Amino acid sequence: MPHISLTNQLPGIAALLKDYPEPAKPMLELAQVLLRGDSTLSEGERELIAAYVSSRNDCDYCQYTHGATAKHLLDVNYDFIARVKKDEADDELTPKLKSLLTIAGNVQQGGQNVSEDDISRAKEAGATDKEIHDTVLIAAVFCMFNRYVDGLATTKPKDDSLYDERGALLADKGYGWQTDV
Amino acid sequence: MPHISLTNQLPGIAALLKDYPEPAKPMLELAQVLLRGDSTLSEGERELIAAYVSSRNDCDYCQYTHGATAKHLLDVNYDFIARVKKDEADDELTPKLKSLLTIAGNVQQGGQNVSEDDISRAKEAGATDKEIHDTVLIAAVFCMFNRYVDGLATTKPKDDSLYDERGALLADKGYGWQTDV
Repeated sequence: MPHISLTNQLPGIAALLKDYPEPAKPMLELAQVLLRGDSTLSEGERELIAAYVSSRNDCDYCQYTHGATAKHLLDVNYDFIARVKKDEADDELTPKLKSLLTIAGNVQQGGQNVSEDDISRAKEAGATDKEIHDTVLIAAVFCMFNRYVDGLATTKPKDDSLYDERGALLADKGYGWQTDV
Repeated sequence: MPHISLTNQLPGIAALLKDYPEPAKPMLELAQVLLRGDSTLSEGERELIAAYVSSRNDCDYCQYTHGATAKHLLDVNYDFIARVKKDEADDELTPKLKSLLTIAGNVQQGGQNVSEDDISRAKEAGATDKEIHDTVLIAAVFCMFNRYVDGLATTKPKDDSLYDERGALLADKGYGWQTDV
């Protein structure tokens, strides 16, 4: 049961976005800019970073929603997504994406945990400054979303198949539309 | 030295906001809504929550900037701000604010760390659902800002007196104006 009274029974962050539209607007705009805006990282790669960080924060709603979104965008299967989260798919990732996931994982632990070596490895693997910037900020943003979702004890979907459905919707439409949910 | 090349030498998050205006816009709007929008928590109390969380994330730029902002808004001294961060000023806080700082500190650790007892204590001390919501989200938002600032290794101000100056400016003007910095 959520820690506060909500006027709707939507799962996860959707309940909060609906009841608290003032902060919802800039939060969704931030997600849209980072996950769907101009970037040399694909939308699927960015959603994978979001799922990876959410997994490390043990935020089920976010890790399964963004894992599903990444699955749809990258045209992979859920086994691959699960292995990426456990660092068991390193050989199937480009060195650049692997180095960016390492940075994201260290941001999840705390900003100071990103080392010069992490950055050097990413640059050697071909990551641009903007890609590094966006990776750090996506990881930071999901440290926010994860805490918002779990810090208020929002509910899980009644049926796990809803994650796949929601992932397909986010892959197709992005984040702006949700303000009307 | 920052982990990425920046076109300006502003300290802390200001350098990032200037060079990456697309995510800066919604981030500043979010700060403005949460820290200056309609609330039964005073602006000073909300800045104190921001400083408290930033202190626990060891983010010097944010903890000293928002500590200074809280100091100006609450008309207290820096010794008080330092004691709040170390949980040594509990007797000088209202039970409601103390209970909200406890929630914020637990959000900093992770969303699941907010317990039913934390919420009950805050409600018994008179906190409304919106105050609890806003506290959780302010804490979550600063877990993002702190990681953005430190995850890219932004620079510190050359002179510590700049924190006080910046705090006075944020106390007076809020967050919208910064997009032009």
